[in-house]
Amino acid sequence: MQLGMIGLGRMGADMVRRLLQGGHDCVVYDRNAAAVAALAGEGATGTASPAEFVARLAKPCAVWLMVPAAAVDETIASVAPLLAPGDILIDGGNSHYHDDLRRSRELSTQGLHYLDVGTSGGVWGRERGYCLMIGGEPAAVRRIEPLFATLAPGRDAASVTPGREARGGTAELGYLHCGPSGAGHFVKMVHNGIEYGLMAAYAEGFNILHHANAGAENRAVDAETTPLRHPEQYRYELNLADIAELWRRGSVISSWLLDLSAAALLGSPNLAEFAGRVADSGEGRWTVAAAIDEGVPAPVLSAALYERFSSRDAADFADRLLSAMRYQFGGHREKR
Amino acid sequence: MQLGMIGLGRMGADMVRRLLQGGHDCVVYDRNAAAVAALAGEGATGTASPAEFVARLAKPCAVWLMVPAAAVDETIASVAPLLAPGDILIDGGNSHYHDDLRRSRELSTQGLHYLDVGTSGGVWGRERGYCLMIGGEPAAVRRIEPLFATLAPGRDAASVTPGREARGGTAELGYLHCGPSGAGHFVKMVHNGIEYGLMAAYAEGFNILHHANAGAENRAVDAETTPLRHPEQYRYELNLADIAELWRRGSVISSWLLDLSAAALLGSPNLAEFAGRVADSGEGRWTVAAAIDEGVPAPVLSAALYERFSSRDAADFADRLLSAMRYQFGGHREKR
Amino acid sequence: MQLGMIGLGRMGADMVRRLLQGGHDCVVYDRNAAAVAALAGEGATGTASPAEFVARLAKPCAVWLMVPAAAVDETIASVAPLLAPGDILIDGGNSHYHDDLRRSRELSTQGLHYLDVGTSGGVWGRERGYCLMIGGEPAAVRRIEPLFATLAPGRDAASVTPGREARGGTAELGYLHCGPSGAGHFVKMVHNGIEYGLMAAYAEGFNILHHANAGAENRAVDAETTPLRHPEQYRYELNLADIAELWRRGSVISSWLLDLSAAALLGSPNLAEFAGRVADSGEGRWTVAAAIDEGVPAPVLSAALYERFSSRDAADFADRLLSAMRYQFGGHREKR
Amino acid sequence: MQLGMIGLGRMGADMVRRLLQGGHDCVVYDRNAAAVAALAGEGATGTASPAEFVARLAKPCAVWLMVPAAAVDETIASVAPLLAPGDILIDGGNSHYHDDLRRSRELSTQGLHYLDVGTSGGVWGRERGYCLMIGGEPAAVRRIEPLFATLAPGRDAASVTPGREARGGTAELGYLHCGPSGAGHFVKMVHNGIEYGLMAAYAEGFNILHHANAGAENRAVDAETTPLRHPEQYRYELNLADIAELWRRGSVISSWLLDLSAAALLGSPNLAEFAGRVADSGEGRWTVAAAIDEGVPAPVLSAALYERFSSRDAADFADRLLSAMRYQFGGHREKR
Repeated sequence: MQLGMIGLGRMGADMVRRLLQGGHDCVVYDRNAAAVAALAGEGATGTASPAEFVARLAKPCAVWLMVPAAAVDETIASVAPLLAPGDILIDGGNSHYHDDLRRSRELSTQGLHYLDVGTSGGVWGRERGYCLMIGGEPAAVRRIEPLFATLAPGRDAASVTPGREARGGTAELGYLHCGPSGAGHFVKMVHNGIEYGLMAAYAEGFNILHHANAGAENRAVDAETTPLRHPEQYRYELNLADIAELWRRGSVISSWLLDLSAAALLGSPNLAEFAGRVADSGEGRWTVAAAIDEGVPAPVLSAALYERFSSRDAADFADRLLSAMRYQFGGHREKR
Repeated sequence: MQLGMIGLGRMGADMVRRLLQGGHDCVVYDRNAAAVAALAGEGATGTASPAEFVARLAKPCAVWLMVPAAAVDETIASVAPLLAPGDILIDGGNSHYHDDLRRSRELSTQGLHYLDVGTSGGVWGRERGYCLMIGGEPAAVRRIEPLFATLAPGRDAASVTPGREARGGTAELGYLHCGPSGAGHFVKMVHNGIEYGLMAAYAEGFNILHHANAGAENRAVDAETTPLRHPEQYRYELNLADIAELWRRGSVISSWLLDLSAAALLGSPNLAEFAGRVADSGEGRWTVAAAIDEGVPAPVLSAALYERFSSRDAADFADRLLSAMRYQFGGHREKR
Repeated sequence: MQLGMIGLGRMGADMVRRLLQGGHDCVVYDRNAAAVAALAGEGATGTASPAEFVARLAKPCAVWLMVPAAAVDETIASVAPLLAPGDILIDGGNSHYHDDLRRSRELSTQGLHYLDVGTSGGVWGRERGYCLMIGGEPAAVRRIEPLFATLAPGRDAASVTPGREARGGTAELGYLHCGPSGAGHFVKMVHNGIEYGLMAAYAEGFNILHHANAGAENRAVDAETTPLRHPEQYRYELNLADIAELWRRGSVISSWLLDLSAAALLGSPNLAEFAGRVADSGEGRWTVAAAIDEGVPAPVLSAALYERFSSRDAADFADRLLSAMRYQFGGHREKR
Repeated sequence: MQLGMIGLGRMGADMVRRLLQGGHDCVVYDRNAAAVAALAGEGATGTASPAEFVARLAKPCAVWLMVPAAAVDETIASVAPLLAPGDILIDGGNSHYHDDLRRSRELSTQGLHYLDVGTSGGVWGRERGYCLMIGGEPAAVRRIEPLFATLAPGRDAASVTPGREARGGTAELGYLHCGPSGAGHFVKMVHNGIEYGLMAAYAEGFNILHHANAGAENRAVDAETTPLRHPEQYRYELNLADIAELWRRGSVISSWLLDLSAAALLGSPNLAEFAGRVADSGEGRWTVAAAIDEGVPAPVLSAALYERFSSRDAADFADRLLSAMRYQFGGHREKR
């Protein structure tokens, strides 16, 4: 079937490639003409403007936006006036689901169907397929289901969950209509919140292994340094790449993130090419905000988020105030 | 090759079965004669006492203990005096690595080799193989390596990490000599600490999804209840079993624990058969204690541990004190 | 000077009393006629309707609202149309500062001045004075400064901070113009966030003391219970009321909250009259949300908030999922 | 009455001064002869060796050690052989209470009484008095109670807790016999754990205030930076010194640590003289370890401890691993 794709960055372009490979017809547009030309060379129909883009789409059409979250509203503003009632507009990026609620309300006045599709898969998606979390009206979802089926990893991407056969549904195929507008990005948001937590669990664990030789280090002996009571218990020089590889087989904590950690540590045991300033792209924040709105505790997901903030020195003033208090009550001076 | 196994609970018995299936010769002992008889019926050599057990082993022998952590010392006391210099004693349970350091020191005076083997795999190990984290003297590890190779899941249990072929070693096979005495249980300890963190990340995330309809609930309107500012943002009825299944394919957070969550939620969406009192078996505690000794932060692993404590009402007095303070400064009375 | 007060609950009524005692003239209104009558009997001018209330105020007037956060907008809607340009409207309750930004913008179109005043003091405020955090236009703040000065605790409520004399300003008096609209409630919000953190620090600490006899308890010996490695280290029966009292003198952790804890524990060492379901009134949530917006870590304030959520069983589903996973991978059954 | 003091650092010397001022007789010793000479000039009896020190003490004597935790055992070894049955040895430093349990057992074989006294007060103790948490045998505590009474702040250091008069006891005076050996340092340990939590609560709160102008900053617009959805909500330039001063009067969060924060911020609003590398002296770690042994949650106290670890870059490897994973799954490159 046909899909129009706006936004040909890494994700958008690879999704087009996967759709083309699956026999679909793709009309593409991007401000960057070179990106359009590249995909045109691979079988897509390239266009040079939103107007030409919409003109090339058969009615009713489906337009998928794969642009940065901050650019979604302006992109909608540039294309929605060109669309007709019954057309479908899909936001496949990392929008906040609050924006989905607003956009679907606004676009419905024009007769347009808005779908929010949380998309996980990263740079591996073209090959592995994309995990698709979909929100919006059921009829619109059904209409373009063949596209979702092609983009998704498919049944064989994982082993069968006992009892699943009897259940049916599309979750096993790697895409799911989660609920009404916003539900797709809500589920994707929590997915990323969990992702932060998983990543932090591994990071903390490997950090503890990394410091397992703490007892072998020379330690300052002064009132500002806690002595290690039993240095003989911390004299291990552990091979983290081997341990990550080991845990991939048979252990309770095997996962795709562990696979990636094993690959990273194999190539670079000390990860010295990284500075440790960890970005966050918003979903972790929104997940914690949702937990707080709902009144449910999320200490692990919050700790994972805060660790990223701290890695970017955002706790510095707080730390200076701690040192200032210690100086005030105890005359303690900072060790440099 | 031959192995003597003491402790024929679920784990010990299944390990014997996997070894027998791999062509090894197993001499077994357990206080419970029925457990011995069962395995004798499956091809093991059953024995009725520690003395008979040791007598049936060819010298130098290897004795694997698979007993509760609390029973390891007494089991060693019952069997070590019957062993001879050069024999190997293996603790495959969940001992604290501090105990390994002590035991290896004590047993070495008798010429015995002590190996600590952290074993992950649970009830699935017989089929999937066991992930083995090994500590102790290299020569002793090498001597019984065929046993480790059979117990472990083997190379095909996971995809190949790019660049691994050039590295060699046994990590890809699912067993690893991690370092000197205690290193096996140290690595297993951190493994379980990570496990707690991963589990909590999923649990928190699914809890946020579970409460995504918070805006649809009637909410008390009083000074003790925070109003939900935007109830219209929390009106999703999400199918958690489907979402867990979905995430198994193509997403960044796929893992074995997610596979298990998908299975659990499929059978019981509200998990009503569980009360939510979550046990902890020690390794999570020791992991946090190790982090603190090393002076490295472990907020995620700690939060995961504390959540288990709280689930068992261990925060009750603290909570009562919070209510008492609120009553003192603001006259606030608890809502029941 | 004259003030109109709407909302004669505990806080509003006590503030009127403190103002009357300070020689000010108070016109009061509340839907509850009995509350009006009571204060009329103490020297205030009671009124029976918003119209009568406004009619009794000399122009330009100042109207202070002391109503639940959820009732502020409707109260403003009932009184603002009766006010004239130049009049001042003060919200002294626990509004979200986002609402202040909106209200001040809306009311300014009518020529009204809106002040947001975060008020701390609880049931003790009448006697100790109220700590006032003020946001809004400087001229409006200055106009009613005599009222703030009377409500506030005054200079003698605390010892002099060295160097303060040279600085001047009103902070030493117990009231402060913190910044433009919303600044008062922003500062009050963070104040309450800190309050949660302080309370939780004491609660956790006293809980650890409360359980200092953990080694004396009989402990189940099974695979689901972590053994206490050194029970002899946890055999203290501590008198918490005495310890709280002790810490009030000379220690680094003396505070008003500790004073209140000492009083609570003195009367009831086990606090059995409380169930430990701890309410939260919103500011702690907003504080964490602000931290996340700003990208600064707030692990302590978040943990304190989450503890309150957990005390109200909001983690139950998460806990059941943890038990379900443990059952799935290890066959572990919950202990009841 | 007479006390022998070994260790004339800031704390030890000031305690001697307070005792001298209270009319007691002090015999002092320190390896540093100048420190001895200084106190001799203020009325103490200076001595030049442990032998001379003990010789000057009337029997049965009381010897107070005020030396670094790491030096306690060797100091005891140098003086205990010179003591006689019935003498009292007091450790007033920050020993781990496990060491108290060991020492009291060892010294009792020699007929010596060992008291552990947790001492809070810092550089202010000489003037304000010391808060004393005492563990050991009741008879030994009673024998030197006049010394405790002089060192402690006394009844007037805090307001009376309602109902306290009827209770009696010494807590109101600022010293308390908490329980058997180790109880003093156990209570002091938890005291310091709470201290960390309180400090962190203030530090996080002030950090949120410090960043309240986040919306005024220019923010990178790229996929690695979360946009601030409502920059207009973060445009406050707050005066933290004034706010700290304000909160000292009438607010729920007034405390001595807030007094100190107000003083620190008054002199240096940005605290630029501190680097924010915050030391920890051990008690916070031991408090968390005790919570874990007891199986009670301590998320706030742990978060406070971990913040200190992070301030000293102890999370660096973990952060690098997070960046490495993000690079692996998403091709994300770190922003510098």
